[in-house]
Amino acid sequence: MNYQTGIKRDNYNYLYSNRGMGLENDLNSSNKYYLETDRAIIYKKHTPITINRVDYKSRNDEVIKEAHFKIPSTTDYNGIYKGKYIDFEAKETQNKTSFPLSNIHNHQIIHLKNITKHGGIGFIIVRFSTINETYYLSSQMLLQFIEQESRKSIPIEYFKKNGYLIKDSLRPRLNYLDIVDKELGDNNE
Amino acid sequence: MNYQTGIKRDNYNYLYSNRGMGLENDLNSSNKYYLETDRAIIYKKHTPITINRVDYKSRNDEVIKEAHFKIPSTTDYNGIYKGKYIDFEAKETQNKTSFPLSNIHNHQIIHLKNITKHGGIGFIIVRFSTINETYYLSSQMLLQFIEQESRKSIPIEYFKKNGYLIKDSLRPRLNYLDIVDKELGDNNE
Repeated sequence: MNYQTGIKRDNYNYLYSNRGMGLENDLNSSNKYYLETDRAIIYKKHTPITINRVDYKSRNDEVIKEAHFKIPSTTDYNGIYKGKYIDFEAKETQNKTSFPLSNIHNHQIIHLKNITKHGGIGFIIVRFSTINETYYLSSQMLLQFIEQESRKSIPIEYFKKNGYLIKDSLRPRLNYLDIVDKELGDNNE
Repeated sequence: MNYQTGIKRDNYNYLYSNRGMGLENDLNSSNKYYLETDRAIIYKKHTPITINRVDYKSRNDEVIKEAHFKIPSTTDYNGIYKGKYIDFEAKETQNKTSFPLSNIHNHQIIHLKNITKHGGIGFIIVRFSTINETYYLSSQMLLQFIEQESRKSIPIEYFKKNGYLIKDSLRPRLNYLDIVDKELGDNNE
């Protein structure tokens, strides 16, 4: 079995049962499309790991023999769009009615808050995989919920009211930049 | 031996002889300082690897047993500064008079060109470690050299004339953002 490192720690169990990689695949293919069409330059960050042991047979044949996953200190994706810094986290949940906040590390929330403060575009993309609906929620609206509510999960109604449903399409699979445009007040239509 | 994954493929040999990590350490400590002083949010990207085999003893005890290094498709560092997207590559050379272009992959140069085109701030930081001088060279000046010259290495004079010497200091170790300010036309003095 051979897979790339853009895989979330939380997704390992899903991976083995072939679930949970849908959102990541859709985002990677959308970002590839944005790159090819010269609309934006956005990449998935590599998985943070600590390497303990490497076998050096030669300069071109190095094999990592022992390594461990680290908890990410930032988010999953970043890049540039319309000259602006863009930064977001993407998560899937099997829950049908709400998104458990335990899916996002506290330092990731702080990072998103910090990005917004520095003039960047920060948001989360959450897929309710059971009902196959994917939402965009800005950092501002995410933080507003956390600061005002004591609940440990965000109801899907909050996404519907304060975020945007991202429609599926052929190319790009998830056109989340059209939503960024709406947030920026740019009209493509 | 235990080390973090922010290590360049080209630096493995140095690593074992305790050389070549100076620039990376200086940049990481400078970025930490910028983050703590709320000036910018800039991180070293994780090393791109392909994971072949993972042992799952439990959810919290996963050990990567086989993985390989991949050639990076982008640069080493990115982040946000003054609302703008910032992106750069950092390299050390033992050469005293010129920087061999073989140190930078072609797709990294294309990436930097693309970043500039999209309104981001792109540059390279090159340390001539033998003489302990570190230079900033904008993507524009890097590309100008590549397009106009047929030489396979950039003479140090080109850095002196078209780039900036980054002075060492205590905190931050390498104040490269002051040079970005100069490029942006912002005067801190």
